[in-house]
Amino acid sequence: MRSSQLGVGVVGYGYWGPNLVRNFAGSTAARVVAVADRDPLRLAALTRNHPGVAATARYQDLLDDPAIDAIAVATPAHSHYDLALMALRAGKHVLVEKPLAPTADLARRLIDEADRRGLVLMVDHTFLYTPAVRKISELARKGEIGDVYYYDSTRVSLGLFQSDVSVIWDLAVHDLSIVDHLIDEPPVAVSATGCSHVEGAPENMAHITLFFDSPCVAQVNVNWLSPVKVRKTLIGGSKKMIVYDDMEPTEKIKVYDKGVTVDASPEIAQQLRIGYRAGDMWAPNLSTREALASEVEHFVDCVRNGATPLCDGVSGLRVVETLEAATRSMAGQGRPVMLGNVTQARNARRATA
Amino acid sequence: MRSSQLGVGVVGYGYWGPNLVRNFAGSTAARVVAVADRDPLRLAALTRNHPGVAATARYQDLLDDPAIDAIAVATPAHSHYDLALMALRAGKHVLVEKPLAPTADLARRLIDEADRRGLVLMVDHTFLYTPAVRKISELARKGEIGDVYYYDSTRVSLGLFQSDVSVIWDLAVHDLSIVDHLIDEPPVAVSATGCSHVEGAPENMAHITLFFDSPCVAQVNVNWLSPVKVRKTLIGGSKKMIVYDDMEPTEKIKVYDKGVTVDASPEIAQQLRIGYRAGDMWAPNLSTREALASEVEHFVDCVRNGATPLCDGVSGLRVVETLEAATRSMAGQGRPVMLGNVTQARNARRATA
Amino acid sequence: MRSSQLGVGVVGYGYWGPNLVRNFAGSTAARVVAVADRDPLRLAALTRNHPGVAATARYQDLLDDPAIDAIAVATPAHSHYDLALMALRAGKHVLVEKPLAPTADLARRLIDEADRRGLVLMVDHTFLYTPAVRKISELARKGEIGDVYYYDSTRVSLGLFQSDVSVIWDLAVHDLSIVDHLIDEPPVAVSATGCSHVEGAPENMAHITLFFDSPCVAQVNVNWLSPVKVRKTLIGGSKKMIVYDDMEPTEKIKVYDKGVTVDASPEIAQQLRIGYRAGDMWAPNLSTREALASEVEHFVDCVRNGATPLCDGVSGLRVVETLEAATRSMAGQGRPVMLGNVTQARNARRATA
Amino acid sequence: MRSSQLGVGVVGYGYWGPNLVRNFAGSTAARVVAVADRDPLRLAALTRNHPGVAATARYQDLLDDPAIDAIAVATPAHSHYDLALMALRAGKHVLVEKPLAPTADLARRLIDEADRRGLVLMVDHTFLYTPAVRKISELARKGEIGDVYYYDSTRVSLGLFQSDVSVIWDLAVHDLSIVDHLIDEPPVAVSATGCSHVEGAPENMAHITLFFDSPCVAQVNVNWLSPVKVRKTLIGGSKKMIVYDDMEPTEKIKVYDKGVTVDASPEIAQQLRIGYRAGDMWAPNLSTREALASEVEHFVDCVRNGATPLCDGVSGLRVVETLEAATRSMAGQGRPVMLGNVTQARNARRATA
Repeated sequence: MRSSQLGVGVVGYGYWGPNLVRNFAGSTAARVVAVADRDPLRLAALTRNHPGVAATARYQDLLDDPAIDAIAVATPAHSHYDLALMALRAGKHVLVEKPLAPTADLARRLIDEADRRGLVLMVDHTFLYTPAVRKISELARKGEIGDVYYYDSTRVSLGLFQSDVSVIWDLAVHDLSIVDHLIDEPPVAVSATGCSHVEGAPENMAHITLFFDSPCVAQVNVNWLSPVKVRKTLIGGSKKMIVYDDMEPTEKIKVYDKGVTVDASPEIAQQLRIGYRAGDMWAPNLSTREALASEVEHFVDCVRNGATPLCDGVSGLRVVETLEAATRSMAGQGRPVMLGNVTQARNARRATA
Repeated sequence: MRSSQLGVGVVGYGYWGPNLVRNFAGSTAARVVAVADRDPLRLAALTRNHPGVAATARYQDLLDDPAIDAIAVATPAHSHYDLALMALRAGKHVLVEKPLAPTADLARRLIDEADRRGLVLMVDHTFLYTPAVRKISELARKGEIGDVYYYDSTRVSLGLFQSDVSVIWDLAVHDLSIVDHLIDEPPVAVSATGCSHVEGAPENMAHITLFFDSPCVAQVNVNWLSPVKVRKTLIGGSKKMIVYDDMEPTEKIKVYDKGVTVDASPEIAQQLRIGYRAGDMWAPNLSTREALASEVEHFVDCVRNGATPLCDGVSGLRVVETLEAATRSMAGQGRPVMLGNVTQARNARRATA
Repeated sequence: MRSSQLGVGVVGYGYWGPNLVRNFAGSTAARVVAVADRDPLRLAALTRNHPGVAATARYQDLLDDPAIDAIAVATPAHSHYDLALMALRAGKHVLVEKPLAPTADLARRLIDEADRRGLVLMVDHTFLYTPAVRKISELARKGEIGDVYYYDSTRVSLGLFQSDVSVIWDLAVHDLSIVDHLIDEPPVAVSATGCSHVEGAPENMAHITLFFDSPCVAQVNVNWLSPVKVRKTLIGGSKKMIVYDDMEPTEKIKVYDKGVTVDASPEIAQQLRIGYRAGDMWAPNLSTREALASEVEHFVDCVRNGATPLCDGVSGLRVVETLEAATRSMAGQGRPVMLGNVTQARNARRATA
Repeated sequence: MRSSQLGVGVVGYGYWGPNLVRNFAGSTAARVVAVADRDPLRLAALTRNHPGVAATARYQDLLDDPAIDAIAVATPAHSHYDLALMALRAGKHVLVEKPLAPTADLARRLIDEADRRGLVLMVDHTFLYTPAVRKISELARKGEIGDVYYYDSTRVSLGLFQSDVSVIWDLAVHDLSIVDHLIDEPPVAVSATGCSHVEGAPENMAHITLFFDSPCVAQVNVNWLSPVKVRKTLIGGSKKMIVYDDMEPTEKIKVYDKGVTVDASPEIAQQLRIGYRAGDMWAPNLSTREALASEVEHFVDCVRNGATPLCDGVSGLRVVETLEAATRSMAGQGRPVMLGNVTQARNARRATA
């Protein structure tokens, strides 16, 4: 039945837009009504692949279409805020590419607009829907990892340099959304360093450290100028440690029963009584479902049931605030930047939830 | 001929001492005269393996022995300074384990003492003598890498926690000595972050960023609490990029003919004209000679010919100054610490060379 | 211009057919006129993805269509012969999935039919068009490998079991076509062993050894019941040795400057004077072009220019004869089977070329 | 107490002898009395490393020494039989390097000699004492693998060519001893193929297939002329499948919960109803104890308690018979050779046990 399907419009049919269209089209609960893009070649490609979807060069057509209940924004980063705001003001639910907005202030305006209108605002933090991250999250929730000691990620490859944002807004954003999801407490400070090797261009390699109130630390190493592609994350916990290697075709997650034990009553101050535990390794079988398929399903569910998405606007805001703080720290060669406001926003949100 | 061989004494026969004794014993240009260690079990092991070498519990015996021309110090870090100073004062050439001293001030005193007496003072930065680092260094000197854009190293494994120094004095010291050797300019600032997961113990994981006047950056990621052992360094250059993986049994170095090219006349400000170059990869065959064999040979040569070692006291000092600065930065959650003094010391040294 | 494009019909739109349609559609020199498949769901999928292509359940429609110059057969193996023969008799050029026919006799009939009518008959040995195999072939032709000592391939994974042919007709066929292409002399004998672990089903794991007149040997290890996917081939030559690992995302080919040298005048009979040479390794950069795109381009060229395809019917015949012989050997637990006829066919072909 | 220690003599101090001496010396239950070798340089090395052990050029000295209870034979393969026989006739227990003898007939004579005299005769099949093989064996005994479907091993590297035996007597012997240990039933036939690339020298690469009465197969691929070192074994079972990679520093064994299920009532003859099961992977933690330390301990225990070693003469004989049969098959280009005698010997042995 037509009316039972969510009508979706997509703006932007470049790199990511076709994936969104394909996955919404593959969902029985949604229907792609129309796609807007200024490039006629892209619209022609859309028509070839999806003959039943309307193609338009004018975003306003999507906003005006009563058959469209929700809009997915898949345009370049600098336009996310404007397009998402227009969609909300037109009464449409919104799924927006990461990052949610170029500044925390603008991200907050989007959140407020969505809240005021009772609309769903969701950020496309796709990694949270990968079978690998879902499994890690499940292990963490079940207490199998124990206290999280650290998250240490390397995300490097050759290209694609972006001209308007540094590498942390392009690559580190993935890790920051995973950290936001996995670690229960908010970061309290960030130190970041980076370097640009192309004159006049933003930083193409960077390292971020997030500090927490507890002795937990998150490290993210990103680089557009690496000879090899690495997507590897170590997660240390008091009970288990995980290696998550996204370049592996299978066995992306390996859970190690390894760690240290500390003697409770050390008499000799100089000499730590540390024991090393080396047990089995275990690689859980993972679903092969495409992350974006799970994500669009979740978005449609949230719209239907008025539920708060896993990656709601507030989680998108937290990530943007951290990116802003990291950018300031990077300009100061690692000078730490406090993250108080984020904590307050999170707590305020939780209090009202 | 007996008199043509350098008489060597070794203090400390724990983890590294046996390797020093074995390699000095294997050199035709040197002879191990005596070994000092307080532990009788270790001395017994020495006698079993090297019946012709005198064993003593008293370091003074080494200092007093006229047959001993040089002393190798292989004791725990906190005793390096005292034992090296005593050796120099007794007129012996010195090869000392890294780090050279616990502070830059003490390192300078050792350098002065050696200079005043015309003795060789060499620091055991073993990695500089590995076939892998020698090959990288050769490629850099020949200009095959081009300008070095970055050095990015990961050196993590499970254990061995040390009780008196943080992980950077134990693991990062290797990378700092390699960076000091490979990159022609001195670092001007350092930012470091770290974390301890054992109450009352020094940091067991840390990240260091070194800044230079040029757009070059060095990153070092060290961790005693990793489920897997990683020893992997990426080196980016304007001409070539290198992956140095010390865990590989062979093919430790892979040289990639990869990089980016920037269009000289970009008309569109927003849009960087970056081209990506992906060429062949090449893994040079490496010698299988033990690094320490090359190192003791070099030490003996320097003593014989009055030459300045590759890892002389001043290079050891530079590493210690960086470690000190990194430690201060780490206490300040990444706050950058300037490295002016090191530059001066290096320049002064070069001016007099 | 319409008339300058080769009109193509495709029969079979299951697993491989869509790839053929997509690549013919992507070629400027060809046009997909119609597709035949008995399954209406598959035809519906065709229409969605390629609205301009005619869909039919009747193969005869393709044979009758004067706009169709060539037919690609992408149906299950047992139907290849019949459909290809019908196409040739209808005056169409033919590109047929491997294996060319279930027996060498039937393969010969197809060759004769094509020869008599002056039509192109090409077998879809896709691996010959991969950038990796093309590079290996180029190195071999240039003499960089030297004499080929051996080809040793492992091609194992979990699934997909086939019910009518053994694993050698499904997986080893790829290696046999590569061997046929790379090694200049024909195999003179084959020994094969295998095993079935599902009652009543054909062999799901097997090993084939091909013998040549020269001291060259080819080994192929195939298995549908392996816990891990392996696609790894070692090629030993008198000058260089190659590791071709198709599971690597990049660096699929590694060329090793390694080998042995034999002392020409060994005085001691018991003691071989063998020297080992260990030089550099080199991984040539490979094109990322899809193999099937190169293959359909080659097919169209051959039809246009009346040229003999790289994988013509005779090369397909040689592979089928080897598969037949290997099947007989496998039934005899490795008993060697001579391959004389193939040699004659090849020589005869060459003599007339 | 001196008399409580087993007195051991070792003949041959080349490649493997020093390992035997070191491990017997490290055992509290044994004492190395003397070592015989014709090479004075090797004896000098022995004296340097083990000052308390007598060194002699004459094997007879070991045979005559009443303090020697057991002799370990670590000389080249062709002398194993003679030296072992002399030791048994002198009343000494014997641990002999693999292969036990150059022919099955001679191996039987050694077994008879030991049986007649009530002496222990053990073959040094070291791999059976590795933590990896012990763990696999434990899993098999517990039924966790289920029925063993296949053992498929690749054991290739560059060198060391031997002048008197082919590669199967050098490398495949390891796999044959593991197969003999793991698979409960004896092989009934063998097919082997091989090739020599050095004129006048024995085969430097070979492939062996062992057939059993059950649908189980063992494949062994060995090569002295490979550019890379591979030590990888796949073991398929009805319940679990194992990848054993001896080149991995840790995680040498990975146990996969993967396999196929067959529909019990297939109505359609053409179409197999096969289901694929893909579950978790598990890498059991392995002891890091040196295999040879466990092995010499086991040998000493057997001598003490009159127990039959895991690798007794009969198991050594079975391996030699298979090697002999494989050599004959290899000469016949894979012609299968039956292994009836081995079965009888095994059964006879079991009947009397």
